[in-house]
Amino acid sequence: MTGFTASLAAFAAGPITTTLQTRVVTSLSVLDWISVGRAGVGEPVSRAVRDLILGETGAEQAQLFGGGAAPLRGAALVNGTVSHALDYDDTHFAHIGHPSVAVLPAALAASEWDDRILVDFLEAALVGMETSIRIGLWLGRDHYQAGFHQTATSGAFGAAVAAGRILGFDAVQMQKVLGLTATRAAGLKAQFGTMGKPYNAGMAASAGVEAALLVAGGFDPNADALEGTYGFGATHNGQADAVAALDGLGEDWLFESVSHKFHACCHGLHAALEAARDLDIAEPEVAEIKVKTHPRWMSVCNQMSPTTGLGAKFSYRTVIAMQALGYDTALPASYMEKVCADPRLKSLRDRVSVEADETLSETQAHLTLLRRDGARLEATHDLLAPMTLSEREDRVRGKAAKLIGNDAADAIWSMLRTGGRARDLSKMLAR
Amino acid sequence: MTGFTASLAAFAAGPITTTLQTRVVTSLSVLDWISVGRAGVGEPVSRAVRDLILGETGAEQAQLFGGGAAPLRGAALVNGTVSHALDYDDTHFAHIGHPSVAVLPAALAASEWDDRILVDFLEAALVGMETSIRIGLWLGRDHYQAGFHQTATSGAFGAAVAAGRILGFDAVQMQKVLGLTATRAAGLKAQFGTMGKPYNAGMAASAGVEAALLVAGGFDPNADALEGTYGFGATHNGQADAVAALDGLGEDWLFESVSHKFHACCHGLHAALEAARDLDIAEPEVAEIKVKTHPRWMSVCNQMSPTTGLGAKFSYRTVIAMQALGYDTALPASYMEKVCADPRLKSLRDRVSVEADETLSETQAHLTLLRRDGARLEATHDLLAPMTLSEREDRVRGKAAKLIGNDAADAIWSMLRTGGRARDLSKMLAR
Repeated sequence: MTGFTASLAAFAAGPITTTLQTRVVTSLSVLDWISVGRAGVGEPVSRAVRDLILGETGAEQAQLFGGGAAPLRGAALVNGTVSHALDYDDTHFAHIGHPSVAVLPAALAASEWDDRILVDFLEAALVGMETSIRIGLWLGRDHYQAGFHQTATSGAFGAAVAAGRILGFDAVQMQKVLGLTATRAAGLKAQFGTMGKPYNAGMAASAGVEAALLVAGGFDPNADALEGTYGFGATHNGQADAVAALDGLGEDWLFESVSHKFHACCHGLHAALEAARDLDIAEPEVAEIKVKTHPRWMSVCNQMSPTTGLGAKFSYRTVIAMQALGYDTALPASYMEKVCADPRLKSLRDRVSVEADETLSETQAHLTLLRRDGARLEATHDLLAPMTLSEREDRVRGKAAKLIGNDAADAIWSMLRTGGRARDLSKMLAR
Repeated sequence: MTGFTASLAAFAAGPITTTLQTRVVTSLSVLDWISVGRAGVGEPVSRAVRDLILGETGAEQAQLFGGGAAPLRGAALVNGTVSHALDYDDTHFAHIGHPSVAVLPAALAASEWDDRILVDFLEAALVGMETSIRIGLWLGRDHYQAGFHQTATSGAFGAAVAAGRILGFDAVQMQKVLGLTATRAAGLKAQFGTMGKPYNAGMAASAGVEAALLVAGGFDPNADALEGTYGFGATHNGQADAVAALDGLGEDWLFESVSHKFHACCHGLHAALEAARDLDIAEPEVAEIKVKTHPRWMSVCNQMSPTTGLGAKFSYRTVIAMQALGYDTALPASYMEKVCADPRLKSLRDRVSVEADETLSETQAHLTLLRRDGARLEATHDLLAPMTLSEREDRVRGKAAKLIGNDAADAIWSMLRTGGRARDLSKMLAR
């Protein structure tokens, strides 16, 4: 071994030191994950995967989004899929993946089953998510560009570590579970735009749980299969820069810079929506709005005049107009045919123009508002710009309240901040 | 799509024409699979995976090797793993994989659950195995050389198609199940020599069943994710020669040239053991035995004087001496420490020499026997040399009788040849 797996395993099995920032962001991700999961229960992919697992009528070891319970592997498959069904969960740009939807289903199922306190769950969740991000960095951009869905691949390792931590793994067992997961981790970007994308997240969560349970039961795999010869990195276009990926491990929490989504549309639109939010645009005053964005997004989310809700989620002009007209871009239900057909929206949309600007990064957007009174206002927003902890808390809790109601959002947040048992939190997955 | 997936899907969903040869070989593979599976129940990897699935206490939809029953996905995971635990199942050299252990668990679980007749099961099994071989050819040697375990990767697609056929899929559903499997298929050769190798087979069987059940339940994936841009082939070092891989599909059954293993040791030793069998060597007459084999095997299975059963399974000198002394190389239990320590074996082993010969293929071996009476006998054996159907039947049934007893072997064979229900065959998985 070159030591990458050993370093991760020692980190994953050992004591950790966290900051207030890390702990709050972890809890916010849990709240966010439960909110988007509950909101995603009605999606067709959620029904298909729930039906599969409920049809197995297995032991009721862990609760499912949408109600019911299943064995750990099945619960992880369902909860990972359902919570990614709306593609509204958190994102980590450094490893190009969604950490919560792969890791939290595994951590929570194991914690519920083992009747752990929430502090244990949150710690396992954090260690698992940090591991998935570190492995994501180690695999690098080449891995993603080759066609692998990092949420699924790196996510499986994070899920395995999180479940293993709840199962009390030492560093040797952690190496084994990383090695076993190496033969099981999978997931292609080719599924983007289909039910296969959320399924990839469920697969990752379930693969991690399966590997952890097998290792706990005495399964003895090649513990070097992540980084060794013909290992996961070598076979899956990994860049294998262990020095960068391990930098500050255990001291700096890369997870802290996770981004929560505050608009239920393509992530490429978010910086522009945030810039528009900074300008506090209201429709009657708008003469013209000019959007500048990174060139890569022009082919992804610049539909000019979509007529469907799905189309609206990939249209700068539409979402900017929606926001200025008071449609709540945080609500999935706002993106509908009827809104696209609203004459006020069509009129405003025709006053919005979009152009590529190579000087902007992928997380930046620039907006120019020309008001009817002749004033010209400009704003630039970068999704990576630090957000104060209290602002982040306000916005995640506000989003959660919109998705699952104020009472449920408050109840979950209070539980996460004051402690309690994982089983109590699991009950909040059901409507 | 380039048409590869569409061609396979049409084949997999359509009527098929088989020959007596194909039907008998399919049945022989089923008998062989059940025999090696029953013989592998006691392995540690079998216990680990059985414990996982039985611990889920799911619906008793399909029987398990070793007794008990589980939902389809779980049964496929157990039965694929257990039947590959001894590495004594069949091999197909063209696609470099073990077709039965990935496909038969999926086909049988689905057939049992749907209460199908054995004719349906055998047809689905054959179509699934043929599909896995064709996809293996399409992925090609580059895929295997890059580090992917073809049994697991191609096998998952075959398992999906077999289960889909039992579920009554049309060609559109077959394309979908191939596309969904593309995001789930995985398995690394890095696990060779560990419990991870048989687990890879179980994973494949279970992944195929999962994909088929999801598609049956309305799951809508990217149906082009096997061969499309950033699809499984492109991301997994596939050579993508569709013309060669589709050649004769539906008319010629590549599956027919499957090899059954008649010795419970490394496949690299089999040609030499068969050549020794042709010479009918008996110990007292041996002055010297010279083995010539393909150079690749020298680093794989040429341990000079092993002292353990596992070591014996990778030693030309040991297995040739065992056979000449009357130890049954077909029985896993023959490979033990006590046998390695037998003074007669040690003495004979020292009269056996092994050398590489580049003129031989990987499936060939050449033996020279120098007798005490001065006679010199030579034999060459090629594992790819055609075997008559009756010889193959004799040998597979003989092996089965050794592994599970004459009565059980006869009962299974009679069932396969005369018909009956899949459920009756499933009962034969338990001891």
